[in-house]
Amino acid sequence: MLVQEYFKTRKVLIEEALETYLPPSDLYPENLHSAMRYAVFSGGKRLRPILFFAAYEMLLGKKNINRLERLLPVACALEMVHTASLIHDDLPSVDNSEERRGQPSCHIKFGEATAILAGDALLTKAFEVLTEIRNRKIALDCIQILTRAISTRGMIGGQAVDILSVKKKINLNTLRYIHLKKTGALLQAAMELACAANEAEENITITLGNFALNLGLAYQIVDDILDEVGSFDILGKEPGEDNRNNKATYSNLMGLEKSKKTAEKLLRDSYNLIKNMNNNDILVEFINMIKDRLP
Amino acid sequence: MLVQEYFKTRKVLIEEALETYLPPSDLYPENLHSAMRYAVFSGGKRLRPILFFAAYEMLLGKKNINRLERLLPVACALEMVHTASLIHDDLPSVDNSEERRGQPSCHIKFGEATAILAGDALLTKAFEVLTEIRNRKIALDCIQILTRAISTRGMIGGQAVDILSVKKKINLNTLRYIHLKKTGALLQAAMELACAANEAEENITITLGNFALNLGLAYQIVDDILDEVGSFDILGKEPGEDNRNNKATYSNLMGLEKSKKTAEKLLRDSYNLIKNMNNNDILVEFINMIKDRLP
Repeated sequence: MLVQEYFKTRKVLIEEALETYLPPSDLYPENLHSAMRYAVFSGGKRLRPILFFAAYEMLLGKKNINRLERLLPVACALEMVHTASLIHDDLPSVDNSEERRGQPSCHIKFGEATAILAGDALLTKAFEVLTEIRNRKIALDCIQILTRAISTRGMIGGQAVDILSVKKKINLNTLRYIHLKKTGALLQAAMELACAANEAEENITITLGNFALNLGLAYQIVDDILDEVGSFDILGKEPGEDNRNNKATYSNLMGLEKSKKTAEKLLRDSYNLIKNMNNNDILVEFINMIKDRLP
Repeated sequence: MLVQEYFKTRKVLIEEALETYLPPSDLYPENLHSAMRYAVFSGGKRLRPILFFAAYEMLLGKKNINRLERLLPVACALEMVHTASLIHDDLPSVDNSEERRGQPSCHIKFGEATAILAGDALLTKAFEVLTEIRNRKIALDCIQILTRAISTRGMIGGQAVDILSVKKKINLNTLRYIHLKKTGALLQAAMELACAANEAEENITITLGNFALNLGLAYQIVDDILDEVGSFDILGKEPGEDNRNNKATYSNLMGLEKSKKTAEKLLRDSYNLIKNMNNNDILVEFINMIKDRLP
């Protein structure tokens, strides 16, 4: 199967499931349900659930869309948690982003209070859909993996350090912590969930988790570089935002050239972790996608 | 056992467990963990987890504190969810409450961004601790019950309607909806969780759920009445706040006398639902506690 075809079919599968899981916009209270749907269906690339499926199918040894239906709760839970975090991150008291993917952020469109509640509701919905997994051991493993990834030792911890670091001089270790937790933890969870669903051995789980952490960090560094030297077209948003917001970036802290070398090394490390695995073509494609964004 | 003794011992048990579950304040990121602990250990009465234990022990037919240890995740999850909802409700864009239990609200003390994240982290922690329950069926049932109670058909739905109703004329049905969802859903969940932990029959679950919904509604009506005619000492906060915030209340919509009669009827209905159950003494005490607040 062509890589583009893979991404397209899995995205359709995930979006159809999200459509089914989320309460309809015309259900009372309408504004809350509309806010949830607005945030979820605003053009996301569904990278986390696709990454989850890619790892799961690699471990399964075949790409068969019929086998994936029963794991849609896991894929959708990842996307719901990611969306909840974006809604809360965009709030005025957090990152104060009025736009997301070229559209008004959830709180601009629906008001702050409803946006806070929509985030809470999506976070809760993620756990609700995970209880639908038939195999009880797998369901509980998935819930445990996801709570850990979201927790103060994961995504929320990274975001907490991030908001305290604005307008402060931070060092490279702190910036690395922020990215590993804020972005990396959920990507790592996508891998761990794929392993749990496949009842994979622990060493595979650790290897794939590290693959995702390297990948996530590389993605952030490339994002930092593009914010410095990229254009609106490549970045999908106005460049220079990090500097305007006084955010520490890799390119600020270590310079453009060394940032680029660090990203390349992380991508090489990612590749080395999975290069001997069979059916790794989609995971390799994730590495290439990030490499292709490097200027 | 004396009723006061019961409340005291169960409260100690719950607070010791919360102490263990929550990350220490000096763990990085400290401000986030401090905010979570500040909100959880700010003098809450632990009514929801105590109500859960009371129903569980009634169904079990004995009050034996040793049997309760394995259900501490359920009791603590209820308190964590309740606290998360209070943190987010108090935010400036929601109810804008600068005080909670006579102390500065979480966002006043730690800033809005950290308060939002602390709420998210407590919500997530609730599900994390529920995965610790040994019996997998009971663990998944509990997670499902709690997600439903929090969801847009429960607590969050009630809060969403509440924030849209401020400064608007709403009717009694809408006010009833707000209270049944915003307060009632989590009390009902406390009963359903007790039933799930005891693998009780469905008719018991429905009866105890209705008991809790009536109890919650009665509590809210009494609160509305006290906000009108009560003193700071009885209410634990400055009376008249609802009127100052243009909030619809039962006493506004149906008058003091009829509000009082409605509360009394709800408490009678609550009692009738459980009067024939053995060992119902603590549940009956919850009814009496509300009755005693009536002026």
